[in-house]
Amino acid sequence: MSRILVGIDLGATNIKIGCFDSQLNLFCKTSVPTRTDMSPAQVLETMGKTTEKLLAKNERSSEDIAAVGIGAPGPVILDEGIVINSPNMPLFKNVPLRKMVSDQFDAPAVLENDANAACWGEYVLGAGKNVKDMAFFTLGTGIGGGVIVDSKMVHGFADNAAELGHIIIYPNGRPCGCGQKGCAEAYASAASTAKRAAEALEAGEESSLKKVLEETNRITCRDVYQHLADGDSLAKKITDKTAETLAILCINVLHTTEPQRIVFAGGMIAAGDILLNPIREFFDLHIWKMKKENVQICFATLGEDAGIIGAAALAKRAEDGGKL
Amino acid sequence: MSRILVGIDLGATNIKIGCFDSQLNLFCKTSVPTRTDMSPAQVLETMGKTTEKLLAKNERSSEDIAAVGIGAPGPVILDEGIVINSPNMPLFKNVPLRKMVSDQFDAPAVLENDANAACWGEYVLGAGKNVKDMAFFTLGTGIGGGVIVDSKMVHGFADNAAELGHIIIYPNGRPCGCGQKGCAEAYASAASTAKRAAEALEAGEESSLKKVLEETNRITCRDVYQHLADGDSLAKKITDKTAETLAILCINVLHTTEPQRIVFAGGMIAAGDILLNPIREFFDLHIWKMKKENVQICFATLGEDAGIIGAAALAKRAEDGGKL
Repeated sequence: MSRILVGIDLGATNIKIGCFDSQLNLFCKTSVPTRTDMSPAQVLETMGKTTEKLLAKNERSSEDIAAVGIGAPGPVILDEGIVINSPNMPLFKNVPLRKMVSDQFDAPAVLENDANAACWGEYVLGAGKNVKDMAFFTLGTGIGGGVIVDSKMVHGFADNAAELGHIIIYPNGRPCGCGQKGCAEAYASAASTAKRAAEALEAGEESSLKKVLEETNRITCRDVYQHLADGDSLAKKITDKTAETLAILCINVLHTTEPQRIVFAGGMIAAGDILLNPIREFFDLHIWKMKKENVQICFATLGEDAGIIGAAALAKRAEDGGKL
Repeated sequence: MSRILVGIDLGATNIKIGCFDSQLNLFCKTSVPTRTDMSPAQVLETMGKTTEKLLAKNERSSEDIAAVGIGAPGPVILDEGIVINSPNMPLFKNVPLRKMVSDQFDAPAVLENDANAACWGEYVLGAGKNVKDMAFFTLGTGIGGGVIVDSKMVHGFADNAAELGHIIIYPNGRPCGCGQKGCAEAYASAASTAKRAAEALEAGEESSLKKVLEETNRITCRDVYQHLADGDSLAKKITDKTAETLAILCINVLHTTEPQRIVFAGGMIAAGDILLNPIREFFDLHIWKMKKENVQICFATLGEDAGIIGAAALAKRAEDGGKL
């Protein structure tokens, strides 16, 4: 019976676990909630037990595990397999996660940053198939990134490359959580898009979103795109800024590593074409005219599974002796 | 006797030619003027004759040439060894330069974009020694770029990566020659720095530069930095914008490929510390506070030889069977 590759996507709200055969076919998966106050040891125990149960249900055993890949939020030291810290999980400080996972599963383990793992998943089996150069953005609370050059993940000098959400688009603009001003993330993440809408309402701008704020006391990015679809003009103004920011972000990444494909992922892409089309239009508006650019701007295709698929692909690559 | 590597830096004003031993030691070099109306065949003939003479003077013969590397301005197709077009050399359109060079010298030839060749020279023997990840800017009429990731040149999907001068820093800002608005090049190249100073004078701003404009009818970037050194406040304002633009450019490249070292080259670096120090200061001002960044921002060390050294290093690498 074929050996099993396990892909794990560690998040502050839940742990996603997927089991794959050696050809990277997903044969079972599950998800288990995390609490932000969990210690690394508790997280590891939960991972181990959940995987064991999942495999037992599928008449397999954890003894068949060939390798484990794990994507974790926050900066990592790849050579040492360490998570330096993790946003929203205060007990994760300098955690030797790769070794802990390897010990827990008694199998070789590979650690990667979560956005990179999802990027790698899309690259191997999703929207990045058949290209060699790709850029990847996750649009959520923040904007995560991944860059692939000549079929290899770009990790950078200190394993912290592809922080694409923190490319400065508007110098001295809106403050970002990172301490910079004018980052793409401060305008175009799901959270920032919603926040800019709420600020405009508070400043007295007219909009059908006003009723949402009054009724629920908050505005989500989903609300903004729903009201855009219904023809609200404030929603148009807010989402145009989101799209223009993302378009300039695409141009800036294009002029750096020249990807063939730029892939957007994350909860926000549920908005669909009313998000994607304006990004393409602003790209065409702002891009140089010196030569025609053929970069493809598209959405991710693996949905929530990108993280576990990427982590499993990493595990496979490590097992095959290759380097990501 | 050891075989010879030839490095050629083709420019619109002159052709630089260097001859190196197999250990990349430069043993002779020369430079010959070009005219913008020269045809590719004329350029090749000039290259060949000049190299022959240079070698003869050094008691060597072109029969000892092992390989030739050439850096050419403008976009190239690397696989095919073609120069698509060349700014300021109107007769250079889809020129199969690699084959022409190879035929001329009866030796294998390698073609690279000129900024990439200079970047590679600095990487191999200059300011980029001992690092694996580097970014490179040439500050001249425009701003050229080069990016090295994990010891490899980033070429991108269509051999047009690292157009770093066209990263948009100020959306909807000053028009750039490329057709975009707000490119780094439109603010911070030598030509744009001089142009912004001239515009400010024309708009009536007070400055010691006024006299230069009246006397010579033009302002150069060198004038601006000279008057900065002499304490002129307009020169301070203009060069601060140059430095701030370059600092944000550094931040944006850092968040993409995370180089360990960022190297500035080109005629403009003759300004010295009054150019470099403000770039570092604006970098510290604008960079995130989430983690400390240790990227080194410095000047190139090879001067005008970077192009021929890089081209020769390319030739060596091609001869050794490696890929850039």
